[in-house]
Amino acid sequence: MDELRSPALAKAVEAFASLPGIGRKTAMRMVLHLLKQDDADVMRFGDALIRLKQDVTFCETCHNLSESDLCHICANPNRQHHIICIVEDIRDVMAIENTGEYKGVYHVLGGRISPMEGVGPTDLHIDSLIKRLQENKIEEIIFALSCTLEGDTTNFYLFKKMASFSIPVTTIARGIGVGDELEFADELTLARSILHRLPYEKTLAG
Amino acid sequence: MDELRSPALAKAVEAFASLPGIGRKTAMRMVLHLLKQDDADVMRFGDALIRLKQDVTFCETCHNLSESDLCHICANPNRQHHIICIVEDIRDVMAIENTGEYKGVYHVLGGRISPMEGVGPTDLHIDSLIKRLQENKIEEIIFALSCTLEGDTTNFYLFKKMASFSIPVTTIARGIGVGDELEFADELTLARSILHRLPYEKTLAG
Repeated sequence: MDELRSPALAKAVEAFASLPGIGRKTAMRMVLHLLKQDDADVMRFGDALIRLKQDVTFCETCHNLSESDLCHICANPNRQHHIICIVEDIRDVMAIENTGEYKGVYHVLGGRISPMEGVGPTDLHIDSLIKRLQENKIEEIIFALSCTLEGDTTNFYLFKKMASFSIPVTTIARGIGVGDELEFADELTLARSILHRLPYEKTLAG
Repeated sequence: MDELRSPALAKAVEAFASLPGIGRKTAMRMVLHLLKQDDADVMRFGDALIRLKQDVTFCETCHNLSESDLCHICANPNRQHHIICIVEDIRDVMAIENTGEYKGVYHVLGGRISPMEGVGPTDLHIDSLIKRLQENKIEEIIFALSCTLEGDTTNFYLFKKMASFSIPVTTIARGIGVGDELEFADELTLARSILHRLPYEKTLAG
């Protein structure tokens, strides 16, 4: 950027380039796009970022995004507070909420145990989960972590850690996606979907 | 975003999603990334955007980016102001400047004539180019537009428009890239590089 001699431009490019998956060239394209927009639009963009950190915080109970101490899910008396769904990240909460099928509450771990990436159990919101189990009468824990080595490791770690509470633990169903062709499914998924087959009547109810 | 009930979050996601090539999912990932950063970093990001529009403007002469009336290239008395290189966009200026081989000045058109995309000659900085030719003694015009149908159309339009000035017009060389294997070059490029072959001694000079 030196060849442009514009510190304001260089700073904006640097800011965008700090985002995940954005290199300097893409950052430059974004900044040039913004330069062509109305002043008011770009100001609003800047304001939105400044407000973001001021207004958005994390739920004290489940670590979901929130604009107050409790997120709207934890604060909702109509949710089933005795069922906790454990997810890796806030986007998983959004994905499950979008289905409209889940009435329980969540616990956002903030990642998964991954020795390769240097993420250990203490880096995740596990202590606060155990505290929730100690202080509340929880009747079911649902594991909804990703179906990977790290996800399985994390599931197993949590399972061991929660054994003393003797709370029923379930995990979301894995299998062939709705609308997917059998012939294109990978063998592991297909194997799982055969092993975990359901009585046909059950699928009619859904 | 409704399911999160956070207007601050929704606004930030919307802002990022307005950037070229960024969908709502990527925008969400960027915002979640920012939420995990230090307050000061995010403030700096917001500030950078607000400053961008305040500080950065376009050069009166060549439409390059600038923080004053004239860009650093037009304001530099050591550049060859009688040679104008015509480019589509500011990134092309940067790319050519990075080579360190060009000592003339530029004229940024701001695009290329494209009937398909509804871009006509009046949408480009062509009037200001003609004015430059009228008011200054220009000795060479270099076409450095992209080698596409639109680029060629724009070149031809400009060539006709500038005919009365009888200024020598050149275009940057097209051919096999330095370091590229011949067998992987497309036929058009290879054909051009044979047609426009150079005396070998010339290539030694560079």
